[in-house]
Amino acid sequence: MPVIPVNTPSAKYDVTIASGLLRTLHPRLAKLNPGKPFRPFIVTSPNIWALWSKHFLASFKEPPTVLFHPAGERHKRMSSVEALAQQLATAGADRDSLLLAFGGGVIGDITGFLAAIYMRGIRYVQIPTTLLAQVDSSIGGKTGVNLTAGKNLIGSFYHPQAVLADTDLLRTLPPAELRAGLQESIKAGIIYDAKLFRFMEQNAAAILNTKKNADTKALTKVVAASVRVKADVVSKDEKESGLRMILNFGHTIGHAIEAATNYQQLLHGEAVAWGSIAALNVAIARKTIKPKEAERITKLILRYGPLPTFKATAEKLVALTSRDKKNRSGIRAFILPTAIGKVEIVRNVTEPELLAATNHMLTLMRQKR
Amino acid sequence: MPVIPVNTPSAKYDVTIASGLLRTLHPRLAKLNPGKPFRPFIVTSPNIWALWSKHFLASFKEPPTVLFHPAGERHKRMSSVEALAQQLATAGADRDSLLLAFGGGVIGDITGFLAAIYMRGIRYVQIPTTLLAQVDSSIGGKTGVNLTAGKNLIGSFYHPQAVLADTDLLRTLPPAELRAGLQESIKAGIIYDAKLFRFMEQNAAAILNTKKNADTKALTKVVAASVRVKADVVSKDEKESGLRMILNFGHTIGHAIEAATNYQQLLHGEAVAWGSIAALNVAIARKTIKPKEAERITKLILRYGPLPTFKATAEKLVALTSRDKKNRSGIRAFILPTAIGKVEIVRNVTEPELLAATNHMLTLMRQKR
Repeated sequence: MPVIPVNTPSAKYDVTIASGLLRTLHPRLAKLNPGKPFRPFIVTSPNIWALWSKHFLASFKEPPTVLFHPAGERHKRMSSVEALAQQLATAGADRDSLLLAFGGGVIGDITGFLAAIYMRGIRYVQIPTTLLAQVDSSIGGKTGVNLTAGKNLIGSFYHPQAVLADTDLLRTLPPAELRAGLQESIKAGIIYDAKLFRFMEQNAAAILNTKKNADTKALTKVVAASVRVKADVVSKDEKESGLRMILNFGHTIGHAIEAATNYQQLLHGEAVAWGSIAALNVAIARKTIKPKEAERITKLILRYGPLPTFKATAEKLVALTSRDKKNRSGIRAFILPTAIGKVEIVRNVTEPELLAATNHMLTLMRQKR
Repeated sequence: MPVIPVNTPSAKYDVTIASGLLRTLHPRLAKLNPGKPFRPFIVTSPNIWALWSKHFLASFKEPPTVLFHPAGERHKRMSSVEALAQQLATAGADRDSLLLAFGGGVIGDITGFLAAIYMRGIRYVQIPTTLLAQVDSSIGGKTGVNLTAGKNLIGSFYHPQAVLADTDLLRTLPPAELRAGLQESIKAGIIYDAKLFRFMEQNAAAILNTKKNADTKALTKVVAASVRVKADVVSKDEKESGLRMILNFGHTIGHAIEAATNYQQLLHGEAVAWGSIAALNVAIARKTIKPKEAERITKLILRYGPLPTFKATAEKLVALTSRDKKNRSGIRAFILPTAIGKVEIVRNVTEPELLAATNHMLTLMRQKR
């Protein structure tokens, strides 16, 4: 059972990846809080709860209070956090309460943020149900919500007590969500782990097999390797003052695509996949990466598709990047791949360069349509 | 010029108390951020800005962006924070932005919280304009907003880079606000500083003199002593796990009074003053304080009145205390004075005791009407 430590200046906790974790939840929570009383509150989406509540509650003597929050990026708003906080208060939640984020990235981000600000901070545990949440968003303490002006503009760095990733949950995931999550694993490979990249090249069929009784060994290996990349990077640079920025590879244009399509047309991983191709195009134009390696990257991203198409001009997408949090007083930090498993952070990417790279990505998309 | 350090595990900063600070603001901000670029954004209320913008802007070469937020407890809500964040984003605020909280307690609390969560945390400076904000709410890093379910249920511990308290600002304060702020100074005396208490007994006339050209020496002395109490307590116990709780003296019933009157009838300091009398009544009934000392406390609180009356039954007020943040899994922590300058934290105050004490307070209020 892979147990991967996250170790930052402000928090120390483990990510546990295994089948069957859900059924042993309560003793695990008790072990995380020895001698400290806790009253659990579950934040989840109606869909997830319908599928998995029986497993979730199996180890609880008294059923905890369940708060429902709809899935979907458009519900990641301040008003939702306020509504959940109001429900917590009405149910008598105090500083001894423990929130359990049981869902995908949106549930995790919003529950983490709720835990960060309810009574100025209470404990929480991440129990991610999607691949994307298991390999990426549940780890590292970034929590928050969107503004009309942009994604994740409001939030906190606030770490969970633990991340419990039950790989059984991936069995009920829609295939498109599985593939979108795997795009973040590809990203982990591109920026940090050439071995993971190669494994995903060589085992695509096994990893993508979503038949009911398919062997999930290859998939679990990908999850663990991806978590290791994220945990390692976050442990070295918690607050994103340097290294952690590399995790944003593909996210500049990726976020712009999500904004341009109102967060409703593409899954996050799909938008990041297109964004990665755009970022790669900048590297290709600058000749900072060998053409053969660039080709392998594009090929792997498309292999884990199909990626949905969308309608937006390069001009609009580039305009939408200007409010990206990676800007510091107008200087745009950009993550460029230099080889498979290696990237550099550059600050001199110009608007014409970004426009050209985005246009190339859109051309590729139109060819695939 | 009194400069009082706050020194907690998570932050180190100074509270500076002096006349004329406003006019030298920009060089002071530059000194706080050597070599770090900052783009200032002011959050203030229209009233304060109309009175003091000229002084405020005197040291700025380029006028900073000003965001307005109405004064008053009922505007301390998530929706206001979201609206301010949206304005920041639209104005292009990024991680190099510096928020300046220029106003009373509500402006300070909301701006601090906005700074805590905008892009997961940016810098801010407190420039409190009311006595209450100067002696209490601007210090210690408690930021937040209210829910319908209760006051300050949402928030963060997030410290400013500095607190700059210009005593000139107190000259334009409505007399009732000055008196309400002085109630927090009386509280500081009761819980921690018998010397301050005595000074306020002996110099009431000079402290309360609000004539235009009145000597503010006595008032400045009270401000500095009150800040020292707050800074000392907060430095010893940042997160309110023990000692810091004593600052909540009078706040259990005080918060209930504010809630019962919809946060519109009484100033915070006035509600706390009545709450202090109620808390004192518990101590009198338990005989944990000498009758003569209890009498001196009541007398001083009323000397800095008149305190406005309000309509609420003891039953209603006690019922409203049950959601107080000081509850830990149902155990009510209560601050009881044992002598002037000394309190103890007790956890066994019963509901009948609290009811009787609150009824005594209400009887006193009716006698004064």
